[in-house]
Amino acid sequence: MSSRVAHIGIAVRNLDQAVGVFAALLGLSPEDTVTMGDQNLRIATFDMDGCRVELLEGVSPDSTVSRFVESRGPGIHHFCLTVPDIEREIERLEKAGFRMIDHTPRIGADGGRIAFVHPDSTGGVLLELHQKE
Amino acid sequence: MSSRVAHIGIAVRNLDQAVGVFAALLGLSPEDTVTMGDQNLRIATFDMDGCRVELLEGVSPDSTVSRFVESRGPGIHHFCLTVPDIEREIERLEKAGFRMIDHTPRIGADGGRIAFVHPDSTGGVLLELHQKE
Repeated sequence: MSSRVAHIGIAVRNLDQAVGVFAALLGLSPEDTVTMGDQNLRIATFDMDGCRVELLEGVSPDSTVSRFVESRGPGIHHFCLTVPDIEREIERLEKAGFRMIDHTPRIGADGGRIAFVHPDSTGGVLLELHQKE
Repeated sequence: MSSRVAHIGIAVRNLDQAVGVFAALLGLSPEDTVTMGDQNLRIATFDMDGCRVELLEGVSPDSTVSRFVESRGPGIHHFCLTVPDIEREIERLEKAGFRMIDHTPRIGADGGRIAFVHPDSTGGVLLELHQKE
């Protein structure tokens, strides 16, 4: 299995309002909203036939998404690749000189394991790695 | 056929340098670089098993990508949905109150037809619509 794009993460100011906008834009209904307490995030997902669109609202001013919105405005925040072996991928990227935000995987919104690559080492792109449960 | 995410567009300062970074990041070789003279763009593409990653370099200071990089720095610039009928989709979006940058489709890098939705009407997200040839 090769890596593939799992989702695009979009930072929003107000999730309920953004869900209405994106439901109209994509012509789809969202899945149930999920709250990730440890990351101070609320997440609404639209399933686009393989690759998903995730709307992210920070629920505390110090969440990374709130800080992103504060400094850059709402917009595309990151994209996520599903990889077959996340530990091996982290090791490969660190050897290649990329800076990981997460050196070891943590649990993501869907119960899979995730790790972020720092945008400083990718030319401004926040990349999430994801391995299914 | 429903809409699906066709690619993620990433604005870069220097395409040749960014191609090296993303080849290492994604563990892939890029396809041939394409120059879009009418949009003052050079584009390198990585095919990620369905959804592609496109690196975009503005080759003139007044290209929209150059202006994006100048004001926000390099990073994720837009994402693209392949739709079954682009004229119908433009009509649907305009009726729903979205602001189109392109009211009628124009020809994209792969020969298909494209149209952009203005980020002012989507909460900061530049969305490209694409219909295959």
